[in-house]
Amino acid sequence: MSEGTSRPTMHDVARVAGVSHATVSRVLNGHTNVAPATARAVADAIVTTGYVPNRAARSLRVQSTDTVVLVARENVNVFYTEPTLSPMASGANLRLSEHGYQMLLALVDSPRSAERVGSLIAGGSFDAAILVAMTNEDPLVARLMTTNIPLVTASTPFPGSDIPSADTDNVGGARAITERLVATGRSKLVAIGGPAWAPVTPMRLEGFHQGAKNAAIGHTAVDGWTMAAGQRAMSELLERHPDLDGVVAASDLLATGAMRVLNEAGRRTPQDVGVVGFDDAPVAALNDPPLSTVRSDARATGIALADMVVAQIRGQELPQRHVVIPNDVVWRESA
Amino acid sequence: MSEGTSRPTMHDVARVAGVSHATVSRVLNGHTNVAPATARAVADAIVTTGYVPNRAARSLRVQSTDTVVLVARENVNVFYTEPTLSPMASGANLRLSEHGYQMLLALVDSPRSAERVGSLIAGGSFDAAILVAMTNEDPLVARLMTTNIPLVTASTPFPGSDIPSADTDNVGGARAITERLVATGRSKLVAIGGPAWAPVTPMRLEGFHQGAKNAAIGHTAVDGWTMAAGQRAMSELLERHPDLDGVVAASDLLATGAMRVLNEAGRRTPQDVGVVGFDDAPVAALNDPPLSTVRSDARATGIALADMVVAQIRGQELPQRHVVIPNDVVWRESA
Repeated sequence: MSEGTSRPTMHDVARVAGVSHATVSRVLNGHTNVAPATARAVADAIVTTGYVPNRAARSLRVQSTDTVVLVARENVNVFYTEPTLSPMASGANLRLSEHGYQMLLALVDSPRSAERVGSLIAGGSFDAAILVAMTNEDPLVARLMTTNIPLVTASTPFPGSDIPSADTDNVGGARAITERLVATGRSKLVAIGGPAWAPVTPMRLEGFHQGAKNAAIGHTAVDGWTMAAGQRAMSELLERHPDLDGVVAASDLLATGAMRVLNEAGRRTPQDVGVVGFDDAPVAALNDPPLSTVRSDARATGIALADMVVAQIRGQELPQRHVVIPNDVVWRESA
Repeated sequence: MSEGTSRPTMHDVARVAGVSHATVSRVLNGHTNVAPATARAVADAIVTTGYVPNRAARSLRVQSTDTVVLVARENVNVFYTEPTLSPMASGANLRLSEHGYQMLLALVDSPRSAERVGSLIAGGSFDAAILVAMTNEDPLVARLMTTNIPLVTASTPFPGSDIPSADTDNVGGARAITERLVATGRSKLVAIGGPAWAPVTPMRLEGFHQGAKNAAIGHTAVDGWTMAAGQRAMSELLERHPDLDGVVAASDLLATGAMRVLNEAGRRTPQDVGVVGFDDAPVAALNDPPLSTVRSDARATGIALADMVVAQIRGQELPQRHVVIPNDVVWRESA
């Protein structure tokens, strides 16, 4: 940044991020042909330098629209059938109505859609935005962080940002279901964590260790939220810890993969090995045996997000920058 | 209307509608403290006179937003759990994405919400609007008809308007399920129609008569889409036609009320009387015995609405002003 009183510029951002001026411009203008890690570096540099773009344009945006957009980066079919997104949108919509705001829902399912929605938000079409199913790697998030539109995210806090957030209790949920598994007499537990890049991975592993205490004998990470990843992780853990009698997986799909490998190895669920997951995805109840898991209260998360975003619009102080929503253990036959 | 070349004015609209200038103004400005029949009369008078409001303001709206709003007048909780609205929104969203448009979903659940969404649409925030779960009595519809924003409705055609529309095949669905009932050996059929004000009522009754032919021995209307209305109608029909052996109801809730009355009268379903409904609402499968009904393809309706609204935005001729979407008979134990 230059000396004295001068404001940070796009060149400062480019220098700190170690990218070209043109790349910073692309991120700021919402182009999606930018690698996630690059977009992330630019967003971090914006925070570090305190760069504020379009100061003049932003000062013009004084007119309130009394609308809040809920943006979900999700396939349209998935959004309406997935167990948490619709209740979250419903909870947010109801509470925003109570606060006197009209919610508009925008599903972002393509780079083109991301550009369009980013432009609407950056252009002041809404008073605020609730971001759902997005990570801090998302170029749309990087772009929105450069506006002065109030934002909240349905997620763990984004590293390097101060965007308020609300999420299910990842640590507490994992701890509670692990304690329940221990209470059934299991004493040699392993955990299948999520991918290293997922913010929930360390939290669910932390909950596992809090709940398992001395019964924890090992854990591993995976490269994706897929059943195949769960199968690979289970094979590896079985080899390392052939005497294991309990598995705590960071998602239901990982747990499903794990159960398949255990079955092939002649280890019965739940007789020989108890298995639990997280999310209460549709696959959980359909598993044979049905999977014990953690069910999030997505509606309560939506309500919390609405409260937080309205408080920001009104310039009120938030009691907490990150709100943790309690969840429930759903105990079924797999453990 | 005045003589010569002068354009129709709000006074012309007021005169034709038989209301005050202030009332016309209230309707045009989206106030909701207007009786539905009055709003309707104003809308009709706008069509009759050819009145075009805000000509200057409208000519300013030249900028395309590449967005389409889907407005559903529905309780938020109902929207996300009701069997047809989510699939309709999902189908419209997917097809709009294919056409290069971003869909925004707005649920209108209060007069305040109706005013806000009406203002956004009238103000040119979107290129077009898809109207769902609305009737031609809705003040929001009357207001939107005075704009030049392309509209489509998920409904039967609105009387006195040329808004393009798409809807499930009310006549064909009622005919098909009635024919199926006749095929089970029933020969003395009655119909419980919907409320007189509902546009689908005459269509579903027409389908009943087409399917029943000589087996039709009577029908009645109701005052609302409620189970209690179905009970009252069934009591009346049982008194008039004690030998009836089949009931075709215009909705599943009406059918549920009818089954309750039949049960109290000692007439078993399906042994003594076969009962069928319409909609495949959640109550249908939960009934004892489960209800035979007509299932709409709401997703196909959403896709058709998206195609129609995009054609209008692009100034293309619509092959049909009203599109009828085929539906399926779902045959269960009640008949």
